[in-house]
Amino acid sequence: MSQQNSDRIEMPAPQDPQHLPIRQQMEALIRRKQAEITKGLESLDTAKFTADSWTRGNDGGGGTSMVIQNGETFEKGGVNVSVVYGQLSPAAVSAMKHDHKNLKLVEDPSTGSPQAEGVKFFACGLSMVIHPHNPHAPTTHLNYRYFETWNPDGTPQAWWFGGGADLTPSYLYEEDAELFHKNHKDALDKHDKSLYPRFKKWCDEYFYITHRGETRGIGGIFFDDYDEKDPQEILKMVEDCFDAFLPSYLPIVAKRKDTPYTPEQKKWQAIRRGRYVEFNLIYDRGTQFGLRTPGSRVESILMSLPEHASWLYNHHPEPGSEEEKLIKVTTKPREWVH
Amino acid sequence: MSQQNSDRIEMPAPQDPQHLPIRQQMEALIRRKQAEITKGLESLDTAKFTADSWTRGNDGGGGTSMVIQNGETFEKGGVNVSVVYGQLSPAAVSAMKHDHKNLKLVEDPSTGSPQAEGVKFFACGLSMVIHPHNPHAPTTHLNYRYFETWNPDGTPQAWWFGGGADLTPSYLYEEDAELFHKNHKDALDKHDKSLYPRFKKWCDEYFYITHRGETRGIGGIFFDDYDEKDPQEILKMVEDCFDAFLPSYLPIVAKRKDTPYTPEQKKWQAIRRGRYVEFNLIYDRGTQFGLRTPGSRVESILMSLPEHASWLYNHHPEPGSEEEKLIKVTTKPREWVH
Repeated sequence: MSQQNSDRIEMPAPQDPQHLPIRQQMEALIRRKQAEITKGLESLDTAKFTADSWTRGNDGGGGTSMVIQNGETFEKGGVNVSVVYGQLSPAAVSAMKHDHKNLKLVEDPSTGSPQAEGVKFFACGLSMVIHPHNPHAPTTHLNYRYFETWNPDGTPQAWWFGGGADLTPSYLYEEDAELFHKNHKDALDKHDKSLYPRFKKWCDEYFYITHRGETRGIGGIFFDDYDEKDPQEILKMVEDCFDAFLPSYLPIVAKRKDTPYTPEQKKWQAIRRGRYVEFNLIYDRGTQFGLRTPGSRVESILMSLPEHASWLYNHHPEPGSEEEKLIKVTTKPREWVH
Repeated sequence: MSQQNSDRIEMPAPQDPQHLPIRQQMEALIRRKQAEITKGLESLDTAKFTADSWTRGNDGGGGTSMVIQNGETFEKGGVNVSVVYGQLSPAAVSAMKHDHKNLKLVEDPSTGSPQAEGVKFFACGLSMVIHPHNPHAPTTHLNYRYFETWNPDGTPQAWWFGGGADLTPSYLYEEDAELFHKNHKDALDKHDKSLYPRFKKWCDEYFYITHRGETRGIGGIFFDDYDEKDPQEILKMVEDCFDAFLPSYLPIVAKRKDTPYTPEQKKWQAIRRGRYVEFNLIYDRGTQFGLRTPGSRVESILMSLPEHASWLYNHHPEPGSEEEKLIKVTTKPREWVH
């Protein structure tokens, strides 16, 4: 499959033909992880994921969405792989330069203006959101992606990795937050002990609902535009982060999925999922960019939205309640591992 | 109340002291209409609206939100009046100039740069969204607002009116769409026969969910940055549009509120309300601007969101169904009166 893609797209030959280029290794990794993660999640549900493949029409690439809906454990979720490539227009490059410092428009030497054909790119990633039924079991989000551009003559221009994983509970269980953060810290520590504190903070800052003064959940790790090490080493770091996910999430869901709950707790979950919708539709850069890109696949982008969300006017939890305890941790992020 | 406001804010004296300035007439109009409209809606419910007043803290102004929640007829709704005034920063003026051609930064004659203190403004409006329980009864939105700026020396700079009213059904009843449009056309025709076709088209274009290729509902009227006639005449036009609302909406709700419905129809309503959330959070300029303005009141801005919204992956109604009939009218807006 990845070989087919690489035949269709006119990409530069790898610098060292004995090794597959990073983009192909990353594509293979995300396809393997899509299978592993969906299988892992299915072990906690009687329902199965179903595959929905799509192509970009006239543009290059496509993807496979693995979707679960109305399972016994999982109310709604998706694990989406996409591999896309083609031309970035000068306008798109300008829009992306703000976040990605190495991205450049190639100048036409005869005129000094940006070349009209823009920049060739390749992007692939795995993106996942899982919303369990039980209000005591947290929503989770994971996304790892790789982006690369090259010049018309085939020389490389810019590349970076981005992504992370985070947890969004409706009720706070400190041991769950600790497990999730600890596993991801361990994965990053193998590569560089400075990464976890940095990526943990980045996550709290990125998943912030400014108008509410709340983080979306209890965080995790997040990084973007990351090219500070050898790409092969970063790829290994991304693989280790991937590997940290199932042992971070499955034990939590296994422990919480059959916890008894009240209709009021289910309502609170829907209110929290309303906040999730607010973040994703108003602030999330991937969603904003995707929905404004002609030819992008709306269903895959909005796969992250919960089945149920609710808004009540001026709703505030009772002082001292479990609901208020959750609000407090989103208004003042904590350190979960030391 | 409006006299008090006018004492606190240092506004220029009216040009003709024998008449109240437009801003005071508009404020009086929206307060009167808030009372009328909430009373009209209460006639169809056993629940009552409750008032929630707020002030802008250190900034000038405030408002009153009239809210109904979990009534027998109305699931959630609000009729919000706000009257705010103060200084627009040069950055805010620049951001608003795109939509409002007469807005100007005053230059400091000695430097030629914009004056650092920006521009004094006054804004008032009534904003309403009503979501009935019954999936056969449509959601409605109405908003009329007035904006004015003046120079430090008290001379007027720019002013405009904006607003409109529109209908968002989950099921299409052509007679409802016709009634709503006909009444608003009649109100506008009294002033200028060219207005309804223009404002109807503007409404279809403004309430458009680009990534879905759908209008939010079946439209109505919308205008913005409107200062083409004498302000006193536009104020009368706004009043006539206000007067068109209750006779357009109450008969529809009275007719639909007790229509039997199935759980599937209620689910469809939640899916359509998901689209409503998408429009308001992603595209609506008032919401976007409000949520990004420090000190704005989040609860009043998000009052428009429904109690329940739902997202299913890749959901498409059955061909030939009533649900598909609704989708068709949102993908190709129709003319409802001739």
